[in-house]
Amino acid sequence: MKPIALDAMGGDHMPQAAVQGALQAAQQGIAVILVGDETALKAELAKHRASIPIHHAPDTFGMHDPASEVRKRKDSSIVLAMRLVKDGEAAACVSMGHSGATMAAALLVLGRLKGVERPAILANIPLPSGFVALLDAGANADCRPAHLQQFAVMGAAYARVVYGKAEPLVGLMSIGEEEGKGNELTREAHQLLKATPGINFYGNVEGRDLFQGTTDVVVTDGFTGNVMLKLAEGEARMLLGLIRAALSRGGLVTKLGAALVRPAIRSVARKLDPAEYGAQPLLGVAGYAFIGHGSSEAKAVASALRTAHQAVETGLVEALSTDLAALLASA
Amino acid sequence: MKPIALDAMGGDHMPQAAVQGALQAAQQGIAVILVGDETALKAELAKHRASIPIHHAPDTFGMHDPASEVRKRKDSSIVLAMRLVKDGEAAACVSMGHSGATMAAALLVLGRLKGVERPAILANIPLPSGFVALLDAGANADCRPAHLQQFAVMGAAYARVVYGKAEPLVGLMSIGEEEGKGNELTREAHQLLKATPGINFYGNVEGRDLFQGTTDVVVTDGFTGNVMLKLAEGEARMLLGLIRAALSRGGLVTKLGAALVRPAIRSVARKLDPAEYGAQPLLGVAGYAFIGHGSSEAKAVASALRTAHQAVETGLVEALSTDLAALLASA
Repeated sequence: MKPIALDAMGGDHMPQAAVQGALQAAQQGIAVILVGDETALKAELAKHRASIPIHHAPDTFGMHDPASEVRKRKDSSIVLAMRLVKDGEAAACVSMGHSGATMAAALLVLGRLKGVERPAILANIPLPSGFVALLDAGANADCRPAHLQQFAVMGAAYARVVYGKAEPLVGLMSIGEEEGKGNELTREAHQLLKATPGINFYGNVEGRDLFQGTTDVVVTDGFTGNVMLKLAEGEARMLLGLIRAALSRGGLVTKLGAALVRPAIRSVARKLDPAEYGAQPLLGVAGYAFIGHGSSEAKAVASALRTAHQAVETGLVEALSTDLAALLASA
Repeated sequence: MKPIALDAMGGDHMPQAAVQGALQAAQQGIAVILVGDETALKAELAKHRASIPIHHAPDTFGMHDPASEVRKRKDSSIVLAMRLVKDGEAAACVSMGHSGATMAAALLVLGRLKGVERPAILANIPLPSGFVALLDAGANADCRPAHLQQFAVMGAAYARVVYGKAEPLVGLMSIGEEEGKGNELTREAHQLLKATPGINFYGNVEGRDLFQGTTDVVVTDGFTGNVMLKLAEGEARMLLGLIRAALSRGGLVTKLGAALVRPAIRSVARKLDPAEYGAQPLLGVAGYAFIGHGSSEAKAVASALRTAHQAVETGLVEALSTDLAALLASA
């Protein structure tokens, strides 16, 4: 397999986390090209006495730069990383940087798959066992019903190929189970999804269904999806923090018990840690592109590279293409 | 103070939970009128050898009856309970039943406060210390920017009067901190909120801010708010379940530790239990109306009655009226 192009500059802990993450991935047989400032990357590699191919990029997107600048900033690490994919020198692009800029760069350089009006970010939400695919997790704040239909087809293909579910169930996020419940967008989308061939439409799901694993895929607009994703992360952090505080604030008996249960609680925290799955695919662009958390450390970078590697191996983009073509043909 | 009218029929565990909850409230000096089927209520009261005033209602809304039937079903327990408030026989109305029907009955019987186009459901979201007020939590699936402005004014008045915050911070739920981030609704609402006198507008907040207590009030449309509320409840249940499972699945050492820390974990679960705060106010109707969980048991009914009692004592509706009048005057 071709190497994975890693935007080694975008993110809070770059380029250190990129270099360390790439070294961890290399130990698992995953080849990487680091895209970023050559001098900084060489210095970082020297610390580890390691060697990884570097593709020099003189420019880096800051977290507060407008994504619209992507067109002008052709020498930025994110645009050059996408370019390596487009030119066939890399199998996939991974960035922990500015997600709007990553999306814009993917659209600009890779373009869209046929049948997709709006590519979406898919978030793998961890459940007690396995994951649920939530999309759109933030790429499109305002959506039309047809966008949600395309998300449903892409999410189902993803769950089939990546989760290995033969007939993944697709739910539409709403605020009531009955098809008449919801807002204008979901009421129209419900009718469209009911009539979509090739997907296994469950109907409406509610917020509480997400963590019950009622469906394998949950489709929503990028505003709601992004609010959900960040709410879920914030709540897990708050709750685990409350439990740790309650255990350490208690008397001697509680403290003794806390010492004994710490590994069990750590295993729960790890199960819910975004660093475990590392990056979210951008579905609907003509190539493999992944967006990770800006706060990613080396471990999350390595997970992201592994996630990208596995997606390429399963032929995700080819599966998406086929299913989107079928949707177009049925319209 | 006048008694509180309790819809004793709407909900999963009625009328048992209503009668038991009213008896618990009575012990705290809160007077109640039970509204519902006289025969069923008398039989239930007889079991407890207790006496509570009953207002007979021959009809009850089922959870799947359309809320639009409220107009025709004037003898239903929820409509008659609202009527007692309107007629000055009760100080507030509390229902654990069909929330759409409760909202419709409140609008029909009590009407709206001046300056309110759309009343909203306010959810008290428990934090490690205190609460954050989230509105709209589900009454209005589609909203316009002016509705969010009215929610902001009402939410601020609520946090001042009920939470006792002198200058409550109001946040707008969005998907990025910058004012240009979000969907069409939030971008317009941001501009309106910035220019709203009498509120302390923080700016945009994100999903993760909710549980950090970044602001005292979080304003959003009823679709997003309802998804958030149910997601938060579902995640808390999932996470606490995972932790309990991890503790009971472990070896002897973990099991010993689990026995020692159980009270500390139970205290966290209790802090996050909706039964602790019992009911959500319907803000913007011309009177005191509260909606509780359909699954409420006696304890949650008693909490709801206490919540309603406290709101009446603080003069919440008068405060809302005053602030809404000021908003109208400034327009």
